[in-house]
Amino acid sequence: MRSPYLLFLGDAALVGQDKMAAGILQWRPEHCVAQYRLPGCRADLGLPDMTPAEAVAAGAGTMIVGVVNVGGFIPDSWVAPIIGALEAGLDVAAGMHQRLADLPAVADTAKRHGRTIYDVRQPTRAFAPGNGEKRSGKRLLTVGTDCAVGKKYTALAIEKSMRARGIDADFRATGQTGLLIAGRGVAIDAVVADFISGAAEWLSPAAAADHWDIIEGQGSLAHPAYAGVTLGLMHGSQPDALVICHEPTRTRMLGLNYDVPELGALTEMCLAAARLTNPAVRAVGVSLNTAKMAESDVAPLVRDIEERTGLPCCDPIRHGADRIVDALLRTSW
Amino acid sequence: MRSPYLLFLGDAALVGQDKMAAGILQWRPEHCVAQYRLPGCRADLGLPDMTPAEAVAAGAGTMIVGVVNVGGFIPDSWVAPIIGALEAGLDVAAGMHQRLADLPAVADTAKRHGRTIYDVRQPTRAFAPGNGEKRSGKRLLTVGTDCAVGKKYTALAIEKSMRARGIDADFRATGQTGLLIAGRGVAIDAVVADFISGAAEWLSPAAAADHWDIIEGQGSLAHPAYAGVTLGLMHGSQPDALVICHEPTRTRMLGLNYDVPELGALTEMCLAAARLTNPAVRAVGVSLNTAKMAESDVAPLVRDIEERTGLPCCDPIRHGADRIVDALLRTSW
Repeated sequence: MRSPYLLFLGDAALVGQDKMAAGILQWRPEHCVAQYRLPGCRADLGLPDMTPAEAVAAGAGTMIVGVVNVGGFIPDSWVAPIIGALEAGLDVAAGMHQRLADLPAVADTAKRHGRTIYDVRQPTRAFAPGNGEKRSGKRLLTVGTDCAVGKKYTALAIEKSMRARGIDADFRATGQTGLLIAGRGVAIDAVVADFISGAAEWLSPAAAADHWDIIEGQGSLAHPAYAGVTLGLMHGSQPDALVICHEPTRTRMLGLNYDVPELGALTEMCLAAARLTNPAVRAVGVSLNTAKMAESDVAPLVRDIEERTGLPCCDPIRHGADRIVDALLRTSW
Repeated sequence: MRSPYLLFLGDAALVGQDKMAAGILQWRPEHCVAQYRLPGCRADLGLPDMTPAEAVAAGAGTMIVGVVNVGGFIPDSWVAPIIGALEAGLDVAAGMHQRLADLPAVADTAKRHGRTIYDVRQPTRAFAPGNGEKRSGKRLLTVGTDCAVGKKYTALAIEKSMRARGIDADFRATGQTGLLIAGRGVAIDAVVADFISGAAEWLSPAAAADHWDIIEGQGSLAHPAYAGVTLGLMHGSQPDALVICHEPTRTRMLGLNYDVPELGALTEMCLAAARLTNPAVRAVGVSLNTAKMAESDVAPLVRDIEERTGLPCCDPIRHGADRIVDALLRTSW
């Protein structure tokens, strides 16, 4: 994909809808030149606002549709801006369930102008069902009390901390944003249901005994829509270590009439489920997304959670993930 | 689909590989005219063996590929027989992940001869993610200790028993065989992972308060490859009642290095998971597949399981499902 990127935020009106663009900006800031917002958009990444033509003049090569919505469809209101970007000279990448390539007006425009469209969520290969056989190497999986609580950030921060110590570690992307950051992986929620575990087994193959795969979790075992994806990913990943991700100010799950589960209960639920394919699995840390908390409230909460759970706790954005990696390295595996 | 059917058993060499054909024969015997076996086939449904030409002469309208394999692909050895069936004048139906329509030689032959091919496992509509909202009406879901333990048979037998009493009940098919028996439903394992629960919510919509949907379960919560499908189906189904299906002579899961879970442990695991979307869920019966047991061993085992679990127990093929339905009707819902 031709960088740098123009990040399209559409008409994102809800908290977290810009999480794909925000993730790319956080982990690949050197590739992000501007944002492109439609009227009514409430999201703001702090990048310069540009139209596609202005972004091309500023050197942009690709517009990334950086907004997510439930169901992964492309609203009618995005079609004209996407066509405009192609006409202005940009390639366009999206991570929706619905394919850009399936929109005739978009596909025709791309063809006419010699532009490329990337539907990064679509699996590009076939998978086999899982077999549950033990693989060599070590695996860490991030799990969460809800969607959008920091599972990807946590995995990326742990990879960064491990690599800084010379540990052979690989972030394994399982969602569209992670894929765009890492340049590889599989959008596990877009795989046919029968092959969730098989795709997860493929994603983190047998490796050297001291190699760590740091696998981006998806959804939550307590989520009424996505727990099946979470469980299949967990079984295929056969994690040795779990890190529990949590957004402390959230009491209800995003967009649902369901309470966010209690941290301890969710941890036990995850350990019980993960034991099926790895009886030795352990919880090794709690990762908080404290973006909405006052600075002064964070340290007391972290201390409280460490006391209650006996696990190291940190916010990977505020603190990095060294505290969790330190504890993990003191453990014998 | 034009009946009656020629049931294609291919070169099925493993126990249970003919389960699709066997299920159609069990529940729709009036539609099954013959079986078609390749050299090396060990399955035998007890139907007359016929070639496609002989089956056409006997009145057959459609050949159903009645064999299943792990991964749902179409082996090379089936392609010539499928083409031969089309050339002989039969339509062909299959329930694999791989589509007949994607095999150029098969698609071309069908077109040339004006025959129809049915890929019944492919979803024919888009689904939304689940929302977990409570729906009116009652729902029963069959769950199992492994694949191929009788979840579909149990659901069909319960529907039959309920309807015989004048209860408004509908079997809800979630697999390719159930689809061919019921003529409707959704092959839940072929749905994109993000939409498993949403597809299950669509499958059993809000209904009258005394209406029962009897939902065919898939896989097992204890299955390392398919538990994600099982859990998503369970959450979307929000069952009021679970029936636990079990094959008592099986100690290892089919094709895996995993033990079959203990009946009580599996029941607790299922109840705990199902409570997320229906806190009032109850286990209402145990359904055994005793096909491999001596007749004289069945009654003592049934008594033993009833004593241990406190639930009514029966084999839906040997006994029907009246015993479970009787107990269910004595319960207030």
